[in-house]
Amino acid sequence: MKDTDNIPALMADIGKRAKAATTALATATAERKHAALIAAADAVWARRAEIIAANAKDLDFGRDKGLSAAMMDRLMLDEGRIQSMVDGLRAVAEQADPVGAVLAEWDMPSGLNIQRVATPLGVIGVIYESRPNVTADAGALCLKSGNAVILRGGSESFHSSGAIHACLVDGLRAANLPEESIQLIPTRDRAAVQALLTMTDYVDVIVPRGGKGLVGLVQREARVPVFAHLEGIVHIYLDKSADPQKALDVILNAKTRRTGICGSAECLLIHRDIADTLGRDVLDALAAAGVEIRAEAGLPGPDGMIAATDEDWGKEFLDSIIAARQVDDVDAAIAYIRDHHSQHTDCIIAEDQAAVDRFFATLDSAILMHNASTQFADGGEFGMGAEIGIATGKMHARGPVGATQLTSFKYLVRGNGTTRP
Amino acid sequence: MKDTDNIPALMADIGKRAKAATTALATATAERKHAALIAAADAVWARRAEIIAANAKDLDFGRDKGLSAAMMDRLMLDEGRIQSMVDGLRAVAEQADPVGAVLAEWDMPSGLNIQRVATPLGVIGVIYESRPNVTADAGALCLKSGNAVILRGGSESFHSSGAIHACLVDGLRAANLPEESIQLIPTRDRAAVQALLTMTDYVDVIVPRGGKGLVGLVQREARVPVFAHLEGIVHIYLDKSADPQKALDVILNAKTRRTGICGSAECLLIHRDIADTLGRDVLDALAAAGVEIRAEAGLPGPDGMIAATDEDWGKEFLDSIIAARQVDDVDAAIAYIRDHHSQHTDCIIAEDQAAVDRFFATLDSAILMHNASTQFADGGEFGMGAEIGIATGKMHARGPVGATQLTSFKYLVRGNGTTRP
Repeated sequence: MKDTDNIPALMADIGKRAKAATTALATATAERKHAALIAAADAVWARRAEIIAANAKDLDFGRDKGLSAAMMDRLMLDEGRIQSMVDGLRAVAEQADPVGAVLAEWDMPSGLNIQRVATPLGVIGVIYESRPNVTADAGALCLKSGNAVILRGGSESFHSSGAIHACLVDGLRAANLPEESIQLIPTRDRAAVQALLTMTDYVDVIVPRGGKGLVGLVQREARVPVFAHLEGIVHIYLDKSADPQKALDVILNAKTRRTGICGSAECLLIHRDIADTLGRDVLDALAAAGVEIRAEAGLPGPDGMIAATDEDWGKEFLDSIIAARQVDDVDAAIAYIRDHHSQHTDCIIAEDQAAVDRFFATLDSAILMHNASTQFADGGEFGMGAEIGIATGKMHARGPVGATQLTSFKYLVRGNGTTRP
Repeated sequence: MKDTDNIPALMADIGKRAKAATTALATATAERKHAALIAAADAVWARRAEIIAANAKDLDFGRDKGLSAAMMDRLMLDEGRIQSMVDGLRAVAEQADPVGAVLAEWDMPSGLNIQRVATPLGVIGVIYESRPNVTADAGALCLKSGNAVILRGGSESFHSSGAIHACLVDGLRAANLPEESIQLIPTRDRAAVQALLTMTDYVDVIVPRGGKGLVGLVQREARVPVFAHLEGIVHIYLDKSADPQKALDVILNAKTRRTGICGSAECLLIHRDIADTLGRDVLDALAAAGVEIRAEAGLPGPDGMIAATDEDWGKEFLDSIIAARQVDDVDAAIAYIRDHHSQHTDCIIAEDQAAVDRFFATLDSAILMHNASTQFADGGEFGMGAEIGIATGKMHARGPVGATQLTSFKYLVRGNGTTRP
């Protein structure tokens, strides 16, 4: 039993164990990592009753805490969701192993042969909120990419994450890999997060997944590199050149398919010239689908629209709510988005190629879309398999972060007694 | 004239101007950036007398400050070195433009077309010491890669950097690009560095180039992402399987060709079985070449070796000095290097392929070499053209950092009214 009262000592111990596991992990064969993931998937399914029982404790805790219905839904695990988790583990197992891949190779006139080869990052700290299945996804992706991982789940999913983590450890044991390859911080104490963010000797990168509070904390406190995963403040700009049917299809899907995911649309910018025609039709359709519209004053739309307040702009609702306003043209849309988005995903609905080109060239979001639902912002939909999240920073991993994005690289240089003149 | 007394206001102003320049830079054509670099090269040559006069002031300052001969040499500019700077600017101008390059493209069954496209990072802060030519190199590489840059030179090279910067601004003006694309902090005040490291609203990445003091400051204080450029604590492991001639050639070159560069060897690890034979020959040759040897007790070697102190291990001498010790085998060498290197460049001299494979697989240095001089650790020698330095962090850019490594990317997703089921 670990001493969870002395947080600095606990975290230093966890960090040291993770670091110690990196050598074995970096040189672990693809077969062994595959075997660990398959065994973990088997364990999750075999121990599903335990996981559901642990989840029941978390749901009680969540009810007592007064979590919203959306939060409770994200927290809940049933057999269907556990099956998805198992499928996810198996899918990561079957992916190509990214470690050791020769990313580039060339010869120099000096006689040197140079290879750039994919390597693990080392130790990854993953900090996440509510959704307990992240425990399995993040653990699997870090293992696949040869990294040791220190997981810190949300306090709401404490018991569920613990039960899932136990299954991952079963998998590691079955494949004779170090148990310390995947560790879960065994306390809800927030001081553990603080410690994780400053363990420069042991942690190579922090992956935060969560809301503004978490991201703010990480930005203020982290002393190790961060793969920023900001919230998804997704904007859609409806140009005057838009095709009406595409506009209706894409915007309805982007807002209503699932409102709780980071690729869900949160703000609609409507070209002024079509605000009274296509813009109004789109808003009518959203309202008919049960979406609450928080509108700028003067925006034509259905009865029942709510006047937007300052807080509604640049906000991630993660609910059946959308903010809406008019803009003068594509440049005004770009300027507005720059000031209000989170560099996650933004979309233009247009047939005018010049407007699309300008939108694509000028905005620096991780993902830019044209005439496509922002709900496609997802590693699976990008063909990358499972993802740990959608990174919004500009460094290293960006967009969907799968196993390949969790690697670094090194240069291997081969000579034959080669000296530099 | 800028007010250099109010550092926070000065730096906020510089940051805002840099950020404002990013839109024009991100969409600037390759031709325009090329023209700016050629005009800057012309200006450096035309104004070389001014640069040399400014450098004379810096040399006086350095003498008064009692800088070492090595530091004074790094600071000094003459026509030959200015010609090299001009050549460097022209070489960067002629490189392929990395911005907008389609790094990958694929189609998904959903009907989406996905491209990963290279984009500028945004605003880069470069903090460097002594060598004034970094002003030209860093300015050119950031411009080539479509980034705005805020340069902070060493206090020793204050006047030289200012004179070189003026020429870069000439180039920007000639090409009608924003002057704020390349800014130099116009004060030696250290508070400016502090401000630069915490300007999360304006700065996307910090590139520190310098010694331990600078790197330590950046690690403690930075609130923006960092491309760590640690010092080069370069180790060479001499295996018992080494070819004697290759060993002598490579180790002599690695230590003596130029002692002041980061790829210069600083510590030699000798397999115990050959310490009295090849190891001794290598140390004799180093001593004959005038290299001071700081040796572990009991290491066979020439007269005049100095007993190493604890401080000599894991040290970047940047001088005609090398530390030397015995190790039991390749695993002991790897373990020692892990504890003492800076993840920059390490080398194995061996004919035993199994030892080489283990060295390459297990160490996580940015550059690993086999039978080749560590002095090849250089962007030019890697075929990448000019470099801003050798990054030792694991995130994003790693190894030689040229224009291509100073970019990020975004995903451009094209649909046709495509919705997600």
